[in-house]
Amino acid sequence: MSSFYGENIKMAVFGQSHAPGIGVTIDGIPAGKKIDFDRLSAFLRRRAPGRDPYSTPRNESDVPEFICGFSEGGVTCGAPVTAIIRNKDTRSSDYAAIADVPRPGHADYTALVKYGPSRDAAGGGHFSGRLTAPVCVAGGIVLQLLEDMGVTVKARIVSLGKVRDDGAEAACDKGAAREDRGPAVDFPASSPAVDFPASSPAIDFPVSNLAVENAMKQAIEEAKAAGDSLGGVLECVVEGVPAGVGDPMFGGLENRISGIVFGIPAVKGIEFGSGFACASMPGSENNDGFCFDENGKVVTETNNCGGILGGISNGMPIVFRVAIKPTPSIAKPQKSVDLKTGEQVILKVPGRHDPCIVPRAVPVIEAAAAIAVYDAILGR
Amino acid sequence: MSSFYGENIKMAVFGQSHAPGIGVTIDGIPAGKKIDFDRLSAFLRRRAPGRDPYSTPRNESDVPEFICGFSEGGVTCGAPVTAIIRNKDTRSSDYAAIADVPRPGHADYTALVKYGPSRDAAGGGHFSGRLTAPVCVAGGIVLQLLEDMGVTVKARIVSLGKVRDDGAEAACDKGAAREDRGPAVDFPASSPAVDFPASSPAIDFPVSNLAVENAMKQAIEEAKAAGDSLGGVLECVVEGVPAGVGDPMFGGLENRISGIVFGIPAVKGIEFGSGFACASMPGSENNDGFCFDENGKVVTETNNCGGILGGISNGMPIVFRVAIKPTPSIAKPQKSVDLKTGEQVILKVPGRHDPCIVPRAVPVIEAAAAIAVYDAILGR
Amino acid sequence: MSSFYGENIKMAVFGQSHAPGIGVTIDGIPAGKKIDFDRLSAFLRRRAPGRDPYSTPRNESDVPEFICGFSEGGVTCGAPVTAIIRNKDTRSSDYAAIADVPRPGHADYTALVKYGPSRDAAGGGHFSGRLTAPVCVAGGIVLQLLEDMGVTVKARIVSLGKVRDDGAEAACDKGAAREDRGPAVDFPASSPAVDFPASSPAIDFPVSNLAVENAMKQAIEEAKAAGDSLGGVLECVVEGVPAGVGDPMFGGLENRISGIVFGIPAVKGIEFGSGFACASMPGSENNDGFCFDENGKVVTETNNCGGILGGISNGMPIVFRVAIKPTPSIAKPQKSVDLKTGEQVILKVPGRHDPCIVPRAVPVIEAAAAIAVYDAILGR
Amino acid sequence: MSSFYGENIKMAVFGQSHAPGIGVTIDGIPAGKKIDFDRLSAFLRRRAPGRDPYSTPRNESDVPEFICGFSEGGVTCGAPVTAIIRNKDTRSSDYAAIADVPRPGHADYTALVKYGPSRDAAGGGHFSGRLTAPVCVAGGIVLQLLEDMGVTVKARIVSLGKVRDDGAEAACDKGAAREDRGPAVDFPASSPAVDFPASSPAIDFPVSNLAVENAMKQAIEEAKAAGDSLGGVLECVVEGVPAGVGDPMFGGLENRISGIVFGIPAVKGIEFGSGFACASMPGSENNDGFCFDENGKVVTETNNCGGILGGISNGMPIVFRVAIKPTPSIAKPQKSVDLKTGEQVILKVPGRHDPCIVPRAVPVIEAAAAIAVYDAILGR
Repeated sequence: MSSFYGENIKMAVFGQSHAPGIGVTIDGIPAGKKIDFDRLSAFLRRRAPGRDPYSTPRNESDVPEFICGFSEGGVTCGAPVTAIIRNKDTRSSDYAAIADVPRPGHADYTALVKYGPSRDAAGGGHFSGRLTAPVCVAGGIVLQLLEDMGVTVKARIVSLGKVRDDGAEAACDKGAAREDRGPAVDFPASSPAVDFPASSPAIDFPVSNLAVENAMKQAIEEAKAAGDSLGGVLECVVEGVPAGVGDPMFGGLENRISGIVFGIPAVKGIEFGSGFACASMPGSENNDGFCFDENGKVVTETNNCGGILGGISNGMPIVFRVAIKPTPSIAKPQKSVDLKTGEQVILKVPGRHDPCIVPRAVPVIEAAAAIAVYDAILGR
Repeated sequence: MSSFYGENIKMAVFGQSHAPGIGVTIDGIPAGKKIDFDRLSAFLRRRAPGRDPYSTPRNESDVPEFICGFSEGGVTCGAPVTAIIRNKDTRSSDYAAIADVPRPGHADYTALVKYGPSRDAAGGGHFSGRLTAPVCVAGGIVLQLLEDMGVTVKARIVSLGKVRDDGAEAACDKGAAREDRGPAVDFPASSPAVDFPASSPAIDFPVSNLAVENAMKQAIEEAKAAGDSLGGVLECVVEGVPAGVGDPMFGGLENRISGIVFGIPAVKGIEFGSGFACASMPGSENNDGFCFDENGKVVTETNNCGGILGGISNGMPIVFRVAIKPTPSIAKPQKSVDLKTGEQVILKVPGRHDPCIVPRAVPVIEAAAAIAVYDAILGR
Repeated sequence: MSSFYGENIKMAVFGQSHAPGIGVTIDGIPAGKKIDFDRLSAFLRRRAPGRDPYSTPRNESDVPEFICGFSEGGVTCGAPVTAIIRNKDTRSSDYAAIADVPRPGHADYTALVKYGPSRDAAGGGHFSGRLTAPVCVAGGIVLQLLEDMGVTVKARIVSLGKVRDDGAEAACDKGAAREDRGPAVDFPASSPAVDFPASSPAIDFPVSNLAVENAMKQAIEEAKAAGDSLGGVLECVVEGVPAGVGDPMFGGLENRISGIVFGIPAVKGIEFGSGFACASMPGSENNDGFCFDENGKVVTETNNCGGILGGISNGMPIVFRVAIKPTPSIAKPQKSVDLKTGEQVILKVPGRHDPCIVPRAVPVIEAAAAIAVYDAILGR
Repeated sequence: MSSFYGENIKMAVFGQSHAPGIGVTIDGIPAGKKIDFDRLSAFLRRRAPGRDPYSTPRNESDVPEFICGFSEGGVTCGAPVTAIIRNKDTRSSDYAAIADVPRPGHADYTALVKYGPSRDAAGGGHFSGRLTAPVCVAGGIVLQLLEDMGVTVKARIVSLGKVRDDGAEAACDKGAAREDRGPAVDFPASSPAVDFPASSPAIDFPVSNLAVENAMKQAIEEAKAAGDSLGGVLECVVEGVPAGVGDPMFGGLENRISGIVFGIPAVKGIEFGSGFACASMPGSENNDGFCFDENGKVVTETNNCGGILGGISNGMPIVFRVAIKPTPSIAKPQKSVDLKTGEQVILKVPGRHDPCIVPRAVPVIEAAAAIAVYDAILGR
């Protein structure tokens, strides 16, 4: 079913971009968990639009109202948690003009085919990136539960448009393995990696250094000026997951994580560990040899498997990367069709849109990863 | 749950590499479908081991016995279909030596942590690539059902080790978009693409021309001689799916396809349409403009979205690529640990293994894609 | 998962009796369905408390606010429908006194064991009968969808306390079969059955005649005066379901209906067709012989199977009865334990409660049946 | 999906009465559990046909072959367990004669409507009572796992036809509450209850004394002689389940148990604790007062709730009763229709059938209850 996710916790995401509201229900959250709502708010602000010149000027306070799920004092009571977020700044008239002209790269056409003329076309309806806000509400809660278990989830921008961040290397991110990942700006190999805190609200641009940040921001400005948009690659690292989490075959961590991550609009690819690069490596190089660390714990010398073998965590950091396509809403004229008249048309998309959602996608990926991993941990 | 897949059909895969057997149950297959068992056998032979010098010499006839699900004459009766395949050629003593020494790149260690000493270690147990045989039984049946709907599923080898096939271009496979996908052998750009038939049993090496095939086979032989192994990238194209199949968010075609494809051992990445390449493209280039074809049907000029917008098919071919890691079983000595003695050891893996499973993975990917797409079609 | 139901539609019910609100999400409602909100309100009023001297004086307007799921004009858009109902009249201090003393017949003790001290004890929390309001919101919508298909759902009171309604006989309700169902007040056998309309808001007491109604109301008043409570038996008839709906084994209509009906607090038994009475009938009497009706349609002479054979509808009315236990909240002193002091205590339950919820349960059973049957119809 | 059950374990039942075989897959059984196959066989023999003059003469050895799920020594390995049972004694020609004439009380007609002419009509196909054999294989394994936890499951015959066993009283089985359950043969109230062991293979007729057994057997013989059949009521008691098992709303123990029990052919009703009798009891009588037992454990004075409050176990025995309809296959001529000719016909059902399946249903109900309870325990 489309808007439900999970096996041991169940999440139902609801809402449309220009409906009265959006929201989420999560069932299966254990009772007795004290949630820090200030930290949750800070987490949500990382995703919220309108914070900087690079994102959509649409101003949404995005403050969730919790309808249920808590006893007094903000402690979970074991019942489903439901939060709603009001849509305050709706301008659905923006979309009336394009009701019959599907925007390229959007779900306009497929929604029309699937649901017919009654689909909610305004702002993408249920397909809007705005639906990632409730995912972040759920994920922000789960991140706190994971932290209590010693599990952290941390995403960073690996590339944005053609700008690549080579300064920070994740556990699995061997230079050799990554070489074939396209052009990069030239940074000194020795640039120290920023050790940014997990889920820190202060980090808008989780990259390794200021030069990368500036280059990426400049790329966004150039795209904006050109009426165009940019995508990017995010890397997410989940640390602290004990070995033995996940299941074989269709219950593997890869299946679970991709099952939620592809629910985030604009994600078009995912790879774990060395990912696509492993396809051109010999087995002797890609296999991660086992050894003991100083505490006698079994670890691997490399982490090309991204912390997952046979779908199950091996105790190493879980590492995956996702490809975010460039925002489909662009000011540049595009070819489309008028479904009413049957004519070929040139579409200029009105409305307010991000030239690049990559920075705002960082907490969304963290939220999604948190929910998938937590769900798997509960099923252990 | 680990070994169950599907929403509108339900598939349960069971078995271990060295148990009495393996098999599959599929519930939800409509009644009244005549299955061509000869064609099914031919499809299964494409996956079967021991056919050529490049795959494991283990000789399994891999003939499924159907326990139920049919009325007389091989017509489905609406009840669950179950098939079992006997494991005839088991040599589990091969694995006794490595009971305490996990093989790098395999699930030995994670299975031990998860299930304890009672896990079935022989040949990877339930984690074995052998479990893809029942997936192919289910998929082979579903492929016939899809064909009746005019849907075809066709996979090819895009790269094997460092050898890349640039001769055949899929609908979405723009040269520009693929440029950054690593080194390739140099083939003449004009080499004609083979138009190999869907699910044809004759095709062992679905590549565009003989030069590519020879280069790939030579790479396998070199890896084998070196006691090493190779991975590769497969591309799968599903044609004939009408627009409107799939669901938003977590029910998207991407989620459904990756949810089954990561159940195939060795898959470590998946991308749809332009995939990771889209991350460095501007929106104006990645967006697929709409137009009408000669019959007035809405199509897109390019297919960077891989036939999927908002999780829902748009009527264009569904295109995805998966990264297959090099077979972890290699003859070369590797570092591992003896979990009983607590000592670092050098492991030489005994047993019979493929230096490269990429060619055999082709029908498995087709089977998996067929099941995911058919499940989504039924839910329309 | 506790608060989720359904296979082809998915319903998530959330909320606690004294939380800010309660509500429901339904995913899978087809797009393009015009909902009549006035009729929905009328349906909800049948369940609402405070309408008469027999139900709890707690005054809740119970007006659902729809957060999403509709396009303009109250037409479903294909996205999940979510409604919330605010809890306006909360008096959770009523429940502080009994935090450590579980009320007999309630979920107080089991909730405490399951969720620990953080469970929401006020008013039964998530276990409250108040959660049937969102079930009625979902069911009220589904009833309209069913009506468009020619399917009606109609429940009546078969017995209330020791008062039994023998005036109205359902299709399966053979006198012989029902004889052993306990004492009944003596009504003339010829009393005409009221043909009350499906889902009519005007019907508070769907019984066959005024004498029964008066006897039942008097029984409630006597129970109330005695500080006691009463239960009853409801019968629900679903007409217009075509043959072929439902699935074998665990997907049968009986499984589906009981799977939702036991989610209604106070239901402790369910029987289909002749139900428990069939256990003492010979097969020759219980079997429903087939014949043709005047239109050549296959029907059965009797309906002891309740319209269901092998889990699948046979085209006859679907008939089931549920046992509703007497409301556990009574004014009479009861034996309980003080979990803090470890002492045996005599509990006098404070708060406002129904002496009999049976009349209010009528639309809830209709709602639940509607959802189960509609879900099965979609899966056909 | 029809033939799949479970949330934390997943069971898939497959097969048709006259297909090559029937069987079951259970996923989610923990690794490291030693199964006693002799005890499992003994359990299965309780259900097997052909043991006595009262059941069908069809001779099936019903010995399951385990295809997978075990490591050496009969210890579960964590992978799915699959067992198949061959159908040796098939005589499907018996059924050719009735292909167009549906047997009253059977699923013949509904299967035909649902699946069309390709449905497997022989012996009821997938709807056959024979499918309870694999349920017993799964349940027999689960019963052993439960026993290790101190949980026992024990069913008895409460009534068979018009013969009732009043000698043995279950925890909840207050005489007052049961009085209205129809006529009973007259046994001395003081007859001592047999304390029959759980899952004992020796017990064919789990009733309280020989007089009851003889009366029931005589009733079966009379029915058989008359070409007729009998049903009955079974009571199942699950002891040793700790408080806190089950979930609110749709995840309640009542929902879970009825969700599997209605998958057993011929079950038409279920009630928990005082069940339908509670509907005519006042709350003050039906409520179970809390007290402490000699060990300070919270117990209830009575058990009218059947050990379940709010869907969750309260630590008392879980008690439910099911109504088994009389076997629909009878020798007596019955009214049916010829679907080919459109004529009303008199049907005399050929083949071999039980005049009463009630005794054989006893282990099936135990198996089903075990699976439902174990699934809920795992989800705690």
